[in-house]
Amino acid sequence: MNDADRTNTGILVPEHFIPTPRGISPQAQAWLSTPPPFAMEPEPPLHDKEGWRTHAERGNRNITTYLSRSATTYPADTVTHALSATNLYEIVPQTISPDNDGRVILFIHGGGFYLGGGEAAKYQALPIAAAARTRTFSIDYRMPPSHPFPAGLDDTVEAYRWLLERYKPENIAFYGPSAGGNLAAACILKARDMGLPMPAACVLHTPASDMTELGDTFQTNVIIDTVLVRRSTALFLLYAGGHDLKDPLLSPLFADYGKGFPPTILTSGTRDLFLSNTVRVHRKLRQAGVVADLHVFEGQSHAQYAGDPNAPETKEHFDELTKFFDRYLGK
Amino acid sequence: MNDADRTNTGILVPEHFIPTPRGISPQAQAWLSTPPPFAMEPEPPLHDKEGWRTHAERGNRNITTYLSRSATTYPADTVTHALSATNLYEIVPQTISPDNDGRVILFIHGGGFYLGGGEAAKYQALPIAAAARTRTFSIDYRMPPSHPFPAGLDDTVEAYRWLLERYKPENIAFYGPSAGGNLAAACILKARDMGLPMPAACVLHTPASDMTELGDTFQTNVIIDTVLVRRSTALFLLYAGGHDLKDPLLSPLFADYGKGFPPTILTSGTRDLFLSNTVRVHRKLRQAGVVADLHVFEGQSHAQYAGDPNAPETKEHFDELTKFFDRYLGK
Repeated sequence: MNDADRTNTGILVPEHFIPTPRGISPQAQAWLSTPPPFAMEPEPPLHDKEGWRTHAERGNRNITTYLSRSATTYPADTVTHALSATNLYEIVPQTISPDNDGRVILFIHGGGFYLGGGEAAKYQALPIAAAARTRTFSIDYRMPPSHPFPAGLDDTVEAYRWLLERYKPENIAFYGPSAGGNLAAACILKARDMGLPMPAACVLHTPASDMTELGDTFQTNVIIDTVLVRRSTALFLLYAGGHDLKDPLLSPLFADYGKGFPPTILTSGTRDLFLSNTVRVHRKLRQAGVVADLHVFEGQSHAQYAGDPNAPETKEHFDELTKFFDRYLGK
Repeated sequence: MNDADRTNTGILVPEHFIPTPRGISPQAQAWLSTPPPFAMEPEPPLHDKEGWRTHAERGNRNITTYLSRSATTYPADTVTHALSATNLYEIVPQTISPDNDGRVILFIHGGGFYLGGGEAAKYQALPIAAAARTRTFSIDYRMPPSHPFPAGLDDTVEAYRWLLERYKPENIAFYGPSAGGNLAAACILKARDMGLPMPAACVLHTPASDMTELGDTFQTNVIIDTVLVRRSTALFLLYAGGHDLKDPLLSPLFADYGKGFPPTILTSGTRDLFLSNTVRVHRKLRQAGVVADLHVFEGQSHAQYAGDPNAPETKEHFDELTKFFDRYLGK
């Protein structure tokens, strides 16, 4: 809390104990009671590029190890395509259903704009490729501290153009979790403004849609969200690299969605620090007349309901996305 | 918090200040900083029927005065129809659009199962009648302490049958806020099990769907919800009148929705104590393959976004309901 907040009107919430909810699966009860398996280390000062590089490398090692179990759960072949500045990974799941033969997903990984690249970018894309039984491309976009905005967005736009040369736009879906949700929306907005055709569908999975962090759940779900726990303003500033946080390509919440944005499915949880980020974009899309479906999972923190292949919440999450693709993608 | 909760796993949230969010309208910022205009008095002991009668009478006077401003904002004619044990009010708004001539809404008022009857039941129905420009019937269902479950449900079912004798089921929509959301769902479930035809659409506006109060936001949004503030278990017990709280007609969350439940729109807010009540029913409906749209309003407490005709949130809320009716009702 800063001083500006304290002079504002508001509510003083006394100390209180919040039991693990019983209206969720046993798996979800377990993960809600367990801190995330990758340690949260203190962040270096914003200007300390070398410190951030070390911090990111260590974080990425942890997240990669954590995610590597996906390779066993969701076996797939991977082909690496070289783009101008980075790689685009093609994930070919064990089964591609005949209906989905010409369809593809462009996956844009999460990780706070500074984690989740390399092998982790492949691992993160495996669950949706398997669930949707659809060829999935994961962009290993460049990240800060070496490459702040708009490098990652440029890479994502290049990946989309690469796909447009090979697949029909009506057969392309975007899927971005967290930071990737920001990039998915920003890429579609940029592509639209460049006059490129629009993809058929978009998944914004608890998107980092507002770099200015005005959302109410940044306050109300502090600590209650066991994944993010609290705001990480430094990550947003690191990614923005001095650009105006209200630029719609940095904070897609502030974009004009009224000109052809594709049907979009948004997912979040009642404990999610990004619940406001999610519902505010949902409202913006609805106000603009865009098809936009919202799903909020009971008792779930940030992206928590998508991580355990044995949990009903995870199965349900991917079922919703798959149904949405079936409804809005061509064949 | 009871002792069972304390022995559970969970999170101890320290005292913290939550500023009024800035990403909502000025009107919403104002009402979020203002306690509800009807005083919250201490509840009498559960067995004290006379105490509850006095408590309810006083509460109803306050809520009726508060809601009476609607009569000016949304002028309408009212016709009173006598049912076997209570009244059904027909609200004829100033404008009924030609498309809506054969359509009707069955409105089931909120008020914690013990408030909101009489004149207040008319006032509560005025905004939707005006927004949807549709003839609306408001059931003045019997309530505890004199008439616990299933009296109110029986009255609502009788109102529905009364409508079925006069209107086509495909032209009937249900709309229930809070306690009324419980009764709307319960009435449709009971009608289905009685073999009656199903209505065309249903609005569950922050429904009291789970009398066992297992939802996580009963805990996470305590105090943060400036309307309900905290659980009122006594109200649920008063309404249940000794029946099993898990009976699907008392807690519609536990119902089987897989047999013809109509398309349903659900609305809540990120601060709503009943957010879990809302999203859990949404998930149940989706699991059963029912058309179910969810809308969650940023920074909003229980039903707060439906009360100010000048606020954009209120306008948006009623716009969504009206669009939903236009999509799913016959003509």
